[in-house]
Amino acid sequence: MARIAYFGPEGTFTEQAARALAGPGDELFPVETIRLALAAVRRGEADSACVPVENSVEGPVPATLDGLAEQEPLIAVAESLLPVHFSVLVRPGTTRIETVGSHPHALAQVRQWIEVNLPGARTLASSSTAAAAVSVQAGELDAAVTAPVAVQHYPLEVLATGVNDVDDARTRFLLLRRPGLPLPEPTGADRTSVVAAAANRTGALAELLAELAGRGINLTRLDARPARGNFGEYRFFFDFEGHIAEPRIGDALAALRRRCHEVRFLGSHPRADGVRATVAPSAANEDFVDAAAWVEAVRNGDLA
Amino acid sequence: MARIAYFGPEGTFTEQAARALAGPGDELFPVETIRLALAAVRRGEADSACVPVENSVEGPVPATLDGLAEQEPLIAVAESLLPVHFSVLVRPGTTRIETVGSHPHALAQVRQWIEVNLPGARTLASSSTAAAAVSVQAGELDAAVTAPVAVQHYPLEVLATGVNDVDDARTRFLLLRRPGLPLPEPTGADRTSVVAAAANRTGALAELLAELAGRGINLTRLDARPARGNFGEYRFFFDFEGHIAEPRIGDALAALRRRCHEVRFLGSHPRADGVRATVAPSAANEDFVDAAAWVEAVRNGDLA
Repeated sequence: MARIAYFGPEGTFTEQAARALAGPGDELFPVETIRLALAAVRRGEADSACVPVENSVEGPVPATLDGLAEQEPLIAVAESLLPVHFSVLVRPGTTRIETVGSHPHALAQVRQWIEVNLPGARTLASSSTAAAAVSVQAGELDAAVTAPVAVQHYPLEVLATGVNDVDDARTRFLLLRRPGLPLPEPTGADRTSVVAAAANRTGALAELLAELAGRGINLTRLDARPARGNFGEYRFFFDFEGHIAEPRIGDALAALRRRCHEVRFLGSHPRADGVRATVAPSAANEDFVDAAAWVEAVRNGDLA
Repeated sequence: MARIAYFGPEGTFTEQAARALAGPGDELFPVETIRLALAAVRRGEADSACVPVENSVEGPVPATLDGLAEQEPLIAVAESLLPVHFSVLVRPGTTRIETVGSHPHALAQVRQWIEVNLPGARTLASSSTAAAAVSVQAGELDAAVTAPVAVQHYPLEVLATGVNDVDDARTRFLLLRRPGLPLPEPTGADRTSVVAAAANRTGALAELLAELAGRGINLTRLDARPARGNFGEYRFFFDFEGHIAEPRIGDALAALRRRCHEVRFLGSHPRADGVRATVAPSAANEDFVDAAAWVEAVRNGDLA
């Protein structure tokens, strides 16, 4: 039985993701911020933490990326991909809706729906989707735009569900733990993540990407984030197909390690969407193994 | 006299940036969203629009990037860089502060300051920093975390100013207009921006960056954003040193145009920080001019 800290409060998309990633009997508890969720794992108060890492509309989650790049390392061992479809919750018996509340990001994603379905309703910002549900319960708001799971926590009714202006919007969540245990097994449909700080000179990023491309490794995400909130210095967050246990991926990571003055492994784990890695001609794992064996044989004087 | 639409309401950092970018006699007016600010220029209701494009802590502004990549093209002709230092505003005579409101992003950036200076105060989300000032004026909140310019719009007092947990946090704003007028003159300290959609295959991004690096062009920002809110398809937003009027930059843009199935020019304009472009050996503008002249001469049979 593991203790899993998640970015709360209860009733948010992150709780929904944590439930999807938890094993039977695991205990889940909400913490107030992403930073506190990571700290709970670093201090051993939790075995793992569930936090959002990117949204297909809003982009990467800065608190998660910066939180993984700084302080003691944590490793992603699993991920979950949730469609961002909201529910609209009201008090039972509500007939007239004059105010609708939610986190500003959620309100931005359902603006058109509100205009069409609740014309004239005023939108009000809350600190989270769940906080809006609390305000509806208290009678301070008429309706809340929330994660579907929220209705399990509050005595409210679902006015509508599956609500979103962008059909394909999705958020990806990570399950993070401390290093020191075996990594998840490779499955052929894995994602590897690293964060690297390279020299601040022309072409530095192009050279790092060439190391991946030259080995036929497909990049799935790249974020360049100012380090320490300063536009002058950047960190690169790379996600790519494959698992560090594979020879081709290990070879690429060694090259990144050599080229960067700082590189941190953020995990290799199965992809939630199950997409299998593309492997380029002459860049399969056997090619790397054969090539290394040939060099070794030549070195020993056995071959030429 | 130009009409400048800015992402409002009045009293925000964007108004402050718009004032810095406006000429004498220009008329400024707030609009409700970034999307509406861009639409006002596209429809000719405004000559230009001022919107935020990136924050050194929070990252790129999705609504601006997506808004520039889609619909009719707009061009950035100037930029402004503002330090993100907040003011804390209260009603005159306030002695006791139990509630502090602001946009959740602003609250996140002053969390430590509030813990130290207003211990025990409850933080409450508003739809904008200026909306929090309105709530203080109405007596619904005791204090608002706002842009410094807000105090000019509301009958409130500055309790503290220059407030921020991260000293170097800055936001960059763009002044955008329709194409069809001459571009700003090159100054030697310019930024060029493009958005490109490349084939979704291994190494595509590495090849684009190699086109820039091979010409000694220094990248200042790179954002990979899912197109249409879908993780499967990406657009790349590049900012790099230099001006499209320069031979070396024109040469690089032609290569991007050739390699990408879609590429859109987003502007060349002076950098707000005045940092001059680094130019690599054998990649100066004269080198490009000389090389082209040599090919022409050889082609004509004059040289070998």
